[in-house]
Amino acid sequence: MTDLSHGAAWFGGRIIPVAEAAIPVTDWGVTHADIGYDVVPVWRGGFFRLDDYVDRFLASVAALRLEIGMDAAGVKSALTQMVAASGLRDAYVAMVAARGRNPVPGSRDPRDCVNHFYAWCVPYVHIVKPDAADAGTSVWIAKSVRRIPADSVDPTVKNYHWGDFTGGLFEAKDRGYETTMLLDHQGNVTEGPGFNVFAVFGDRIVTSGHGVLHGITRATVLEMAAEAGFAVETRPLPLDEFWQADEVFLSSSGGGVIPVARVDDRTFSNGAAGPVATRLRRTYFDWLVRPEWRTEIAGLEAAT
Amino acid sequence: MTDLSHGAAWFGGRIIPVAEAAIPVTDWGVTHADIGYDVVPVWRGGFFRLDDYVDRFLASVAALRLEIGMDAAGVKSALTQMVAASGLRDAYVAMVAARGRNPVPGSRDPRDCVNHFYAWCVPYVHIVKPDAADAGTSVWIAKSVRRIPADSVDPTVKNYHWGDFTGGLFEAKDRGYETTMLLDHQGNVTEGPGFNVFAVFGDRIVTSGHGVLHGITRATVLEMAAEAGFAVETRPLPLDEFWQADEVFLSSSGGGVIPVARVDDRTFSNGAAGPVATRLRRTYFDWLVRPEWRTEIAGLEAAT
Repeated sequence: MTDLSHGAAWFGGRIIPVAEAAIPVTDWGVTHADIGYDVVPVWRGGFFRLDDYVDRFLASVAALRLEIGMDAAGVKSALTQMVAASGLRDAYVAMVAARGRNPVPGSRDPRDCVNHFYAWCVPYVHIVKPDAADAGTSVWIAKSVRRIPADSVDPTVKNYHWGDFTGGLFEAKDRGYETTMLLDHQGNVTEGPGFNVFAVFGDRIVTSGHGVLHGITRATVLEMAAEAGFAVETRPLPLDEFWQADEVFLSSSGGGVIPVARVDDRTFSNGAAGPVATRLRRTYFDWLVRPEWRTEIAGLEAAT
Repeated sequence: MTDLSHGAAWFGGRIIPVAEAAIPVTDWGVTHADIGYDVVPVWRGGFFRLDDYVDRFLASVAALRLEIGMDAAGVKSALTQMVAASGLRDAYVAMVAARGRNPVPGSRDPRDCVNHFYAWCVPYVHIVKPDAADAGTSVWIAKSVRRIPADSVDPTVKNYHWGDFTGGLFEAKDRGYETTMLLDHQGNVTEGPGFNVFAVFGDRIVTSGHGVLHGITRATVLEMAAEAGFAVETRPLPLDEFWQADEVFLSSSGGGVIPVARVDDRTFSNGAAGPVATRLRRTYFDWLVRPEWRTEIAGLEAAT
């Protein structure tokens, strides 16, 4: 038996250990970062909001004019087979569409490339360790870079153009911060590597509406917040206004709601996880197992 | 004997067919486009300006804080072995530094990744077919995208963030144009996929000085132009001024100087390759074999 406990990949119907999954160095997915992807969480043996993630993935595929020859049912089937084979009950599951190689010698025409789909999964990733998230994490606002504008690379089409994030991450890590968030060229708060950003003002919760990924976890947060009686506003969030927030938190499919205690040298909610973020964090993990948003994976049922 | 005539790759000292060269799907080089690279041409059995290309590559590697454990001599040795083994006398030779995989489970810290170097070569690529270049090619100015700004992803650090270019290429190809060029957010002419852009005004030649790759071929053009008595200006080039040019041409290590006959629905130099561009194009191929800029590759000497 092949050991898939560190992760598995799906390539053209074959399931292999993730460490063996590779793409050609001449694939435009590598040489042009010409890839659309998405990541769906698996929690306690079931996908969360699988339809929403796959729909967003296929919207990215269409926006990039990639042709993978698979519909939503085909993608879901591949992901389900792969995760079931891995045995991972809590997993980070990536679905990827790449431009592929160009079989026409010297062609620079993206329409000539042979597009392809693949998927891979690894044990569930918390983008901030749970203990650090519970206590309220730290965020550094990148100073050397601004978020790539939406009219250069559309952030609603989930993509691997992370050069701006990586620059911000180096700044953050060098200064001892957990992660980074980026401003746009107009000075508004946007997003960070793998997450959306929220600011709480009394009974209002504000998150950027433009120039950011429309995260599924972000959508879940907005629904949880509305259900809890908060007014939610998706609109530009200027940095000056952001500094006045009562609380700040992040959202990611890698860990749910992540309270923030410190941004640069300023503390929020007395330097700890705020009460609103903490409540939403608990609610998120409750919602992860809500039957109506779950797709159970045969063979990964809880041990009894 | 392994057939390397379609191209070869260098991985950790091993030379393999380029079609077999692949990088892991979880390499940050893929998942974050976290790669610095460069491309040096081989022409008639020798590298052109090898020192300049390798120096620029190592500057990109340093700017991205990648550690590949190889100095200029090591990189040149790897490239030379690889190209010699391929037998390709005219080649497109890529040297690549990738962030690599992160061995710390769940870590989002780029400093934890295991960076690595690899290289690959294929038969020489003309980004515009020589016949089309000789006649003057066609360029479409992208309307749906602007060039990624330098303070988001630095274009002088040669990188694979091509989402903006790819969007422009689709626009161009759909309309029957050979390639695309992008404007910046201030409306200046920048660059296109794999090339710099020049405008000729009488005895002056202007090319963008900011927000573009400082191409080695661009540098060669500026030197050829100065030697030919032209005044050269590297500065912002507003589109309004660009439209007034007598001639337009492109520069790329994939084909040298490429005359442009048409941009959008406007023709330049009477809809043909202009005389200045044509002259520089010829000079470039002469300079490609200038001994002082060549590094001959043992075993690839011309047949006599």
